[in-house]
Amino acid sequence: MADKKMGGRSLCLPGTPSFLGYANCVGGKEGEGPLKESFDRISTDPFFGEKSWEKAESAMVKIAYDGALDKAGLSPSAVDMLFAGDLLNQCIGTTFGLKESGAAHFGVYGACSTMAESLALAALMVEGGFADVAAAATCSHFATAERQFRSPMEYGGQRTPTAQWTVTGAGAVILGREGSGPYVTHVTPGVIVDAGVTDANNMGAAMAPAAYDTLSRHFTDLGRSPGDYDLIVTGDLGELGSRLLRELFQKDGVELGSRYTDCGLLIFDQEKQDVHAGGSGCGCSASVLTGYLLNGVRSGKWKRILFAATGALMSTTSSQQGDSIPGICCAVAIQKEKGV
Amino acid sequence: MADKKMGGRSLCLPGTPSFLGYANCVGGKEGEGPLKESFDRISTDPFFGEKSWEKAESAMVKIAYDGALDKAGLSPSAVDMLFAGDLLNQCIGTTFGLKESGAAHFGVYGACSTMAESLALAALMVEGGFADVAAAATCSHFATAERQFRSPMEYGGQRTPTAQWTVTGAGAVILGREGSGPYVTHVTPGVIVDAGVTDANNMGAAMAPAAYDTLSRHFTDLGRSPGDYDLIVTGDLGELGSRLLRELFQKDGVELGSRYTDCGLLIFDQEKQDVHAGGSGCGCSASVLTGYLLNGVRSGKWKRILFAATGALMSTTSSQQGDSIPGICCAVAIQKEKGV
Repeated sequence: MADKKMGGRSLCLPGTPSFLGYANCVGGKEGEGPLKESFDRISTDPFFGEKSWEKAESAMVKIAYDGALDKAGLSPSAVDMLFAGDLLNQCIGTTFGLKESGAAHFGVYGACSTMAESLALAALMVEGGFADVAAAATCSHFATAERQFRSPMEYGGQRTPTAQWTVTGAGAVILGREGSGPYVTHVTPGVIVDAGVTDANNMGAAMAPAAYDTLSRHFTDLGRSPGDYDLIVTGDLGELGSRLLRELFQKDGVELGSRYTDCGLLIFDQEKQDVHAGGSGCGCSASVLTGYLLNGVRSGKWKRILFAATGALMSTTSSQQGDSIPGICCAVAIQKEKGV
Repeated sequence: MADKKMGGRSLCLPGTPSFLGYANCVGGKEGEGPLKESFDRISTDPFFGEKSWEKAESAMVKIAYDGALDKAGLSPSAVDMLFAGDLLNQCIGTTFGLKESGAAHFGVYGACSTMAESLALAALMVEGGFADVAAAATCSHFATAERQFRSPMEYGGQRTPTAQWTVTGAGAVILGREGSGPYVTHVTPGVIVDAGVTDANNMGAAMAPAAYDTLSRHFTDLGRSPGDYDLIVTGDLGELGSRLLRELFQKDGVELGSRYTDCGLLIFDQEKQDVHAGGSGCGCSASVLTGYLLNGVRSGKWKRILFAATGALMSTTSSQQGDSIPGICCAVAIQKEKGV
């Protein structure tokens, strides 16, 4: 067993679970951004044909999940376990969207790190022999997040320069023991890191120390350096958070350079789309992973990437009570070829 | 690997992860109930010395977690992974209570089934060789749940006869590969079951079909019957839900009889404590498991029990939008002796 548990907290998956299918679904604004070609479904109707934004979010994650199953060529009954969660109170986005999946359901909550957390757990279940096929899914919707975390949409609140734009998007992946890749080779789960940031309009700053913690442990545990990856992608640190992450590594004499980017910077056009510090939300890293990133690994554009989604573990109640914003980051190493 | 994955969704854990330590912490009302002798810490101060109920809930789960570590004789750094979640929006109860644990943190959301979900995942991680030591913890607080899900405490709302009383309590367990038991032998994770119940004051009825689904699959998958367990305990179906569960099994010609009970019925005195249909909340099954139940297995009172926590996967938003209440139930088989 010792070969799975590495030094530190990192885990090695010698069986290298394979992606069998993956898909996404996004809103109109995301569909106008730089990654538009990588989305399976773009809905210009923010309600996705439903009567409320919450139901729209559920509809969206169902579309992504069904799409991933289709691409895997599997029926819903082939999925042994499904790990899913979202930002809505009590995770109703994924619960209602996926309540008819028929799979063993494990609700997870990692805020905007949920895609990496759920992917990591699904991969570990396959690796551990507990599932032949395991799935992971998450979603977020700009309108549900705005009214739950900030102000009623009708209020038209002004946004601060450090604010990020919650992505309307969902992503789902299906993993199995046998497949033609890409493959999951390592997982470095996150510890909660609280740097004392209290500004709920500056999530990037709150999450950057957690990303630094997880990524630097990942490199140490595996004896790797950033240069061992063709691409290192954090979840949704945005402009400010990703700059902070670069600076934290620079203090160690490590230059992340051009191989490093962030899903929150990739999904929107920072010049033209007026999203301030970039994209955020569970659906941000989920829709970028299940299109642009996995497509790139599959096509051989990148041989090995490190996907490190980040989450801010706060609520309106904790912020109203003056609490700081703890961050978390879960990293998953993904490569084109089988083997660790 | 095939020996772990059984027919249906049930999982076998041949390595039988052992409880190394477990502890709980409850409020004053719980401390006056029938299980008072099984609680490690009873606080007559509902604020647990904190300034808000939410902070009290966090303080409570920290006490339980620290207590479990103490009993296991382990320092916090010995814990590889921690699975934790709660009922508060964005799971702030466990996040803030356990943010300094230093363990790899996996946030989970299973509503009131969280103790079983987190315990199951921790056990699977140990069994799979991904953790030497894994922990699970959850909590709930009557006052935080009332004001989040129902009415402001000051309003003094009238309760319906089918309403349950959210337990102020927390529980934590530490599992490891080697130990003197009790041992986890099997897990039957739940699928989401939506029976169409829309009455948020009748959670028991919403969750009973999910409990029936998981328990009946457990018996079928393992080739066991209720008679193979000395005790079968659902999470918090309460008076109405547990009666419904008995009736669902009776339709199959199966009599659960006196070996079946429910954490929501055990924790309060139904005659004297005015809790209507019984206890509920993540802390209900958590505090009953980590005292009365595990003590009973350890002492030999019961050789084998089936712990099946139940959850109602709704939010105030979903109920306000007229949605039904999907239920879920995760079952974990626990026994005194090692071996499956």
